Amino acid sequence: MVVATSRPTTIKFLKSPTSQAWIDQALANLDEVMLDHSHCERKAAGIAIKLMFLYPGDIALVNALTDIAQEELSHFKQVNQWLERRGVALRSLAAGPYGAKLRKQVRPNDPDRKLDLLLVSALIEARSHERLGLLGEHCRDPDLAKFYRSLMASEARHYGAYWVLATQEFGADVVTPRLDTLATAESEILATLHPAPRVHS
Amino acid sequence: MVVATSRPTTIKFLKSPTSQAWIDQALANLDEVMLDHSHCERKAAGIAIKLMFLYPGDIALVNALTDIAQEELSHFKQVNQWLERRGVALRSLAAGPYGAKLRKQVRPNDPDRKLDLLLVSALIEARSHERLGLLGEHCRDPDLAKFYRSLMASEARHYGAYWVLATQEFGADVVTPRLDTLATAESEILATLHPAPRVHS
Repeated sequence: MVVATSRPTTIKFLKSPTSQAWIDQALANLDEVMLDHSHCERKAAGIAIKLMFLYPGDIALVNALTDIAQEELSHFKQVNQWLERRGVALRSLAAGPYGAKLRKQVRPNDPDRKLDLLLVSALIEARSHERLGLLGEHCRDPDLAKFYRSLMASEARHYGAYWVLATQEFGADVVTPRLDTLATAESEILATLHPAPRVHS
Repeated sequence: MVVATSRPTTIKFLKSPTSQAWIDQALANLDEVMLDHSHCERKAAGIAIKLMFLYPGDIALVNALTDIAQEELSHFKQVNQWLERRGVALRSLAAGPYGAKLRKQVRPNDPDRKLDLLLVSALIEARSHERLGLLGEHCRDPDLAKFYRSLMASEARHYGAYWVLATQEFGADVVTPRLDTLATAESEILATLHPAPRVHS
């Protein structure tokens, strides 16, 4: 567990905590980050469903990811209601490089591919959990802060669920070093703040 | 509204009712049709999410399709529980030609593409509604029949929702003739029973 000076602890799985620069960027561009958050929730539901398409006979995976997809859609709906309340129209938003760079880490053939897809999703969820938590902590609108804090429990469940699926199938001896490698890559991707304000900039 | 001799009425939107041959095939291969039904629910959720990806700024579409995707996932879960109860393991299943043939009807460029995607989804939902209703009517297990009947209301809501989205955007003058053309194609695709027992064989 890395302990940073700017933040008390790093979220489980993550190699380094989010910088103050991201917090400042997000708070200064809250509407855009919230719009990106809406896209993230829809994408997360889409990714869970895509994984079920890839492994339709894996009942543990199917059951866990159905629950995750349902929760992501429920969050998607809630974020969209918040956007409506703030007068922010839904629109497409150019994605930052985070997702594409992480996907490049996924090895092409099973069983490696399956392990990597599960761990990359775990890392994305862990980072989302950390950053939405930071919005919940720092955002100046108390109702919005409360909303962000309300998402924390299920976001934590999601990254835990992906990790459990990986560990049950591949064992901790395989999962731990691979997660270490991917988590290092994940933190390196975020080491330079991307100029577009995004959940994962 | 076409009135057939074998079935009292045809479901709204559909040009011809399902044949007795499909009912016989489905009842004789209920486990396989139920497994396909599970795949259909997951696919329907995936299609709804994909449509939101294509039109992220269309708030009416996003709101309606979020609800649909959530309901499809809820049905997916319920069908999977039924499969588990019947000792049917989840597995991949070769799709019949129905979906691919219908997708060929979708014109490549917007706004035609959007209209066609909405109407093709409406037709798939309408046909699912009809056929799951037939399982609810004819299946010999009273609890399973009850389950299939319980899906009817939301399946009807789904095809209605796709039609409403199309009509609100394109107007009845555009929607009605195009739906007529697509519905004719849909019935032609199903005119010959496909040998693999599927919801849409």
